[in-house]
Amino acid sequence: MKIALAQINVIIGDFEGNTAKIINYIKQAEQRGADMIVFPELATTGYPPRDFLEFKDFIDKAEESIEQIKNVTQNIAVVIGTPSVNPVIEGKDLYNSVVFLYQGQELYRQHKTLLPTYDIFDEARYFEEATHWQIVQFKGKNIALTVCEDLWNIGNENPLYTINPMEKLMPQQPDLIINVSASPFDYTHAKERIKVLRENVKQYGIPLIYVNHTGAQTDIIFDGGSLAIGANQKVFKELTYFVETMEIVDLEQLQSNQTNAEQAKDKIPLIHDALVLGIKDYFGKIGFKTAVLGLSGGLDSAVTTVLATEALGKDNVRVLLMPSQFSSDHSIKDAKDLAENLGIRYDIVPIQSVFDSYMEQLTPLFEGRGFDVTEENIQARIRGNLLMAISNKFGNILLNTSNKSEMSVGYGTLYGDLAGGLSVIADVYKTEVYDLAKYINRHKEIIPINTITKPPSAELRPGQKDSDSLPDYNILDSILYHYIEGQQGPKEIIALGYDKALVERILKMVNRNEFKRHQTAPVLRVSPKAFGMGRRMPIVAKYLE
Amino acid sequence: MKIALAQINVIIGDFEGNTAKIINYIKQAEQRGADMIVFPELATTGYPPRDFLEFKDFIDKAEESIEQIKNVTQNIAVVIGTPSVNPVIEGKDLYNSVVFLYQGQELYRQHKTLLPTYDIFDEARYFEEATHWQIVQFKGKNIALTVCEDLWNIGNENPLYTINPMEKLMPQQPDLIINVSASPFDYTHAKERIKVLRENVKQYGIPLIYVNHTGAQTDIIFDGGSLAIGANQKVFKELTYFVETMEIVDLEQLQSNQTNAEQAKDKIPLIHDALVLGIKDYFGKIGFKTAVLGLSGGLDSAVTTVLATEALGKDNVRVLLMPSQFSSDHSIKDAKDLAENLGIRYDIVPIQSVFDSYMEQLTPLFEGRGFDVTEENIQARIRGNLLMAISNKFGNILLNTSNKSEMSVGYGTLYGDLAGGLSVIADVYKTEVYDLAKYINRHKEIIPINTITKPPSAELRPGQKDSDSLPDYNILDSILYHYIEGQQGPKEIIALGYDKALVERILKMVNRNEFKRHQTAPVLRVSPKAFGMGRRMPIVAKYLE
Repeated sequence: MKIALAQINVIIGDFEGNTAKIINYIKQAEQRGADMIVFPELATTGYPPRDFLEFKDFIDKAEESIEQIKNVTQNIAVVIGTPSVNPVIEGKDLYNSVVFLYQGQELYRQHKTLLPTYDIFDEARYFEEATHWQIVQFKGKNIALTVCEDLWNIGNENPLYTINPMEKLMPQQPDLIINVSASPFDYTHAKERIKVLRENVKQYGIPLIYVNHTGAQTDIIFDGGSLAIGANQKVFKELTYFVETMEIVDLEQLQSNQTNAEQAKDKIPLIHDALVLGIKDYFGKIGFKTAVLGLSGGLDSAVTTVLATEALGKDNVRVLLMPSQFSSDHSIKDAKDLAENLGIRYDIVPIQSVFDSYMEQLTPLFEGRGFDVTEENIQARIRGNLLMAISNKFGNILLNTSNKSEMSVGYGTLYGDLAGGLSVIADVYKTEVYDLAKYINRHKEIIPINTITKPPSAELRPGQKDSDSLPDYNILDSILYHYIEGQQGPKEIIALGYDKALVERILKMVNRNEFKRHQTAPVLRVSPKAFGMGRRMPIVAKYLE
Repeated sequence: MKIALAQINVIIGDFEGNTAKIINYIKQAEQRGADMIVFPELATTGYPPRDFLEFKDFIDKAEESIEQIKNVTQNIAVVIGTPSVNPVIEGKDLYNSVVFLYQGQELYRQHKTLLPTYDIFDEARYFEEATHWQIVQFKGKNIALTVCEDLWNIGNENPLYTINPMEKLMPQQPDLIINVSASPFDYTHAKERIKVLRENVKQYGIPLIYVNHTGAQTDIIFDGGSLAIGANQKVFKELTYFVETMEIVDLEQLQSNQTNAEQAKDKIPLIHDALVLGIKDYFGKIGFKTAVLGLSGGLDSAVTTVLATEALGKDNVRVLLMPSQFSSDHSIKDAKDLAENLGIRYDIVPIQSVFDSYMEQLTPLFEGRGFDVTEENIQARIRGNLLMAISNKFGNILLNTSNKSEMSVGYGTLYGDLAGGLSVIADVYKTEVYDLAKYINRHKEIIPINTITKPPSAELRPGQKDSDSLPDYNILDSILYHYIEGQQGPKEIIALGYDKALVERILKMVNRNEFKRHQTAPVLRVSPKAFGMGRRMPIVAKYLE
């Protein structure tokens, strides 16, 4: 039996476009001799559709898509994820389902059992869990249909669920597991996914077909990495990361395969590719083409500009250099060098005269108080305003260049350097931004070496350096990682050997600055714990403050 | 038996302060002869603690609070909500529990069964549901302990749950239901709450004690309204809305009571009081005293300034009047009149010169393009920057004055008039803002009549009026209400008789402007569907666009 794995990139709620894409792949797969084609979880709607799921109209449209898709299944079976109405009055109104279509008929609809409700996932908000499990018979094979998390309650030291749908299906003697997924990327995920899926194959002794989304949905990036794994636990096929693609797998070959076909999973290249796709899809899916950024001569804006140029093309990225009296000579030169290396348009807009005009109005109100963070913030906000003016006038999207270290501790100005439509590297710690810069420069010097080697500075007052107010980034990032990704408390982090006062100071900064993160752009998610829907913190609180 | 209802206002994660407050009320209740005192749900931690619950340190601290509280229960029983560790490895790590403490002992811990996971609630993210139900015997009474939602699966046409904890407890013949709650305010809630609790009393034929939080936790406001209802369904006591208070109820009196003691539940006064408390607690709980606002002469900033003055006092509110060339003469006069009526400080800061300095820098980059929304936004952002400068220099919090109608359709400038630390009226439609203004003026003219009667305008270009780009607010708000609160789709709204093109245009505006709402301040929640955690929408999508 030949099975097509359709690793597609859809747009949330674009029923017309998504359905057309799905039908197109079905026809291609049929022409190429496939017996069956498998699409990802909630392929009709895109993932995550969030509260659109609460609109009857939205669910009706998804069901209309399934009706249209059913009509092209005369000669090929289609396995696809879509939401279903729960006909029982009690409980949540929907199921998260996988549908088996063949010869114009719906043969079976299996609902998802394990509903992830942690990090970015909210499935218990919308869906009722399955209470019925049944295999589908197709061309002499017994097929166990599962949806994403259904296979993840295995080999886990702290299982999240008290039930396991495969245990319900095994008595019906399946020959093959199919898993339709919406399993978002983070730099640990590809490894973890193969490990978990292999454990299923080992446990149940049958091959597995896994199909994931690719593409970015605002902040959440899907890497694809769809898989065919033989009963011998060898990876026969792993679909290319971060691209929409379809591949056809012969079940007989899958069974006899003896070598692993896996892609490299190095952290920095994965993050790089994810961010480029994240930018590309954010623009493409809302119909924008061009970006504007502020280029300071520093590392963060340099890396973000390179990523934007890779995603959008050099003719679609422009930058403003906005020096003030506190800018060092090398800043302008480093920024110019980068723009020239990339071949992108740059304009120089000094901010001194605008700053002076603000101070003329404000000085009488400042009652003789001296230069403080207020004047630093005014400069940052003038730059934000200039960038937004270019954005508004020419229909560019402003890209935000803040990194995760400064977002964590609140080292940034709301409506100033924290402005922008999309935060590109705010899930990348400063130490990782250095690694990204080195990776970008692996073949030749794109980012000026001086940008990488000089001490980081916001250049908002004379001689300012990040190290004036923050610890060394190696130590800062490490403490932040334990607190944010590791969800460890102060006692646990101090027990690892970090200075008590420093740990307490940093954790307090993180908690106190939740109000800033609440007002920043969506953050492209590349780590297991990014700012955004995956990390929900009170703003007004007194914990660790 | 005398039972104290302790309707308290705690700070999330402030274990020291919360525990001290709880122990203080226990001692007061004991002195006043109470046999038992009841506190709200998760009283040790505050509600909602969100992802703090995922930190072991946080849960340990909550349990330490319970240990300290246990020590003062020699002569009085304490019923209190707190999180518990789930000792079973499978499933979520926590329970949401109510603990019964007496004579230094923990007599029983009942876990919550029904875990709300909709709107602002995320309880399935953290908690496992109860599988064991047991009454507590105390001084000859059998007491059924329940947590909030546990009593809400009754009399509902579309029940969210397949289980009902009271049905599990009834065979043990309870004499009294106690419900510890964290039930947030919206203008429909007080009525609905009494209705649901009465239905429980009717169904089970026993009296009920209900204790709720009061106070605001960032955007979520608790109104209290704690209740004692006799077996005859009469409300014996309803604790004062929006204040921290304790009252002692004699169970014998409760049984013999024949009249209802309920407070008025008129929508606009409730919203007014909720917003004042919301401002007060936002400032008080993070240790700020003073607010700054931009006063335009228009309705929204006028109403917000009055609310801020009520919450913080006239010496703690200051406003900037920031006229441009497009400001009408009456704007400055109306704004001055209001500031003088309230006795608050105002300063006039014209923005023309700052605007000119921006244009001097930007004109060469604008390539001869004419005046458009860019120049409008620059003005709004200059005002945002001036307000933030005052905020930074003097430690004031900038209050945002956007209303729900404009937030819905994106009629506002990011980093400009959408700036601020807290959105005061962004859950109040424009038509309701008029009602609030009339309510504020019920005894005398505080808000100048001209502010209420003149046509709304952003005054960002010559002769601009809201009605140039938006339909009449009566129609707009009505369509928005059906879409946002009613969660009705375009077909359903058009079927109500609204113009098809208009409905489609408005829904498209709402969906397209999700990116702006993503970057705005927390919105004080007063309706059943506010912007924020209760309404989770994709930013990049093509649904109804």
